[in-house]
Amino acid sequence: MPSAMILIADGTEEMEFTITYDTLVRAGVQCRSVFIPEPKFSEFAGSSSPPIVKGSRGINIMPDAYFDASQCGPDKFDVMVIPGGAKGAETMSQNSQVQTLVRDFLAQKKLVGMICAGSLSALTSDLPKQPLTSHPSVKSKLVDNFEYSEDAVVISGNLITTRGPGTTFPFALTLVELLCGKEKRAEVYGPMVFPVGTPW
Amino acid sequence: MPSAMILIADGTEEMEFTITYDTLVRAGVQCRSVFIPEPKFSEFAGSSSPPIVKGSRGINIMPDAYFDASQCGPDKFDVMVIPGGAKGAETMSQNSQVQTLVRDFLAQKKLVGMICAGSLSALTSDLPKQPLTSHPSVKSKLVDNFEYSEDAVVISGNLITTRGPGTTFPFALTLVELLCGKEKRAEVYGPMVFPVGTPW
Repeated sequence: MPSAMILIADGTEEMEFTITYDTLVRAGVQCRSVFIPEPKFSEFAGSSSPPIVKGSRGINIMPDAYFDASQCGPDKFDVMVIPGGAKGAETMSQNSQVQTLVRDFLAQKKLVGMICAGSLSALTSDLPKQPLTSHPSVKSKLVDNFEYSEDAVVISGNLITTRGPGTTFPFALTLVELLCGKEKRAEVYGPMVFPVGTPW
Repeated sequence: MPSAMILIADGTEEMEFTITYDTLVRAGVQCRSVFIPEPKFSEFAGSSSPPIVKGSRGINIMPDAYFDASQCGPDKFDVMVIPGGAKGAETMSQNSQVQTLVRDFLAQKKLVGMICAGSLSALTSDLPKQPLTSHPSVKSKLVDNFEYSEDAVVISGNLITTRGPGTTFPFALTLVELLCGKEKRAEVYGPMVFPVGTPW
């Protein structure tokens, strides 16, 4: 069974987090959300019970676990996902252990997904110039270092990026297809009941 | 500022809950999630701090408050939303106080939104025959008592119904338009970055 690690922090965009986690679970992917503390609270990392996160629009979510870099490597998970939400994405992209993991996952041919402002982690992890998208609000920080695209979902080798809450369904379904195949994607797609004419 | 009460229970479909809550907050609607206990746990209702809900795909969400019917009437909120998720929708639709509130909201010309299996509450609340949709999995329970439609979002007076996670964005944006106007809907729509060709 494929497995996914989905990062979460205070200020994470809760739709981007939830659509990804829920869609992957529907495909049989084992999901684990891990809490990234703000730098000023990093001394609490490693406590057994993670705190309740307040999402960017105020929904309270309890992560599955604290972030422990030694338990979060590409030997443990098939994909690592970094959602957006300005404040949450800032916390994740500035975390040096997250930056190292992004490089490790790609080096080990595992998938890395970045959503919305989560794409800032491609910059802070010093990834080589390649196709990428993000939320329009952070485009200016990325255009010089990447081949910036405005496609809904951009696949660049094992780095998958997307633009915002409105593109998270096709992003999550792309991860399902890459991890579990086209047939599983179709199996998951039907019961979600997208409107006629939906372009994904 | 318009206000919304969004029900949540163990087994609630977390995408349907989160997309609705988050989109309404983006429009400036004051949202309050209220926890509906399963009948066997109803003796705990009224405790000050609600328990953590496990969604239908395992995401842990802490509601804003316990359900207290005296604080949840149409004098307090402009819209009441009942999300799907088989188990959560069962808990809500079987709750007699929820049934009474559904009738009270409609009688007071306030909005009632039902998502997915949440539409079962239209049946258990004895609403008169009218246009309605739901998740296909519960269609057979509703076809005899309603004018069943397969449209993505069905507006029947003040009762707004929708089909599943895949139709929750247009559902939530419909609520934004009804509560806050077309201009606010457009203002919220842009930053969500839907793919080109999205039919809502």
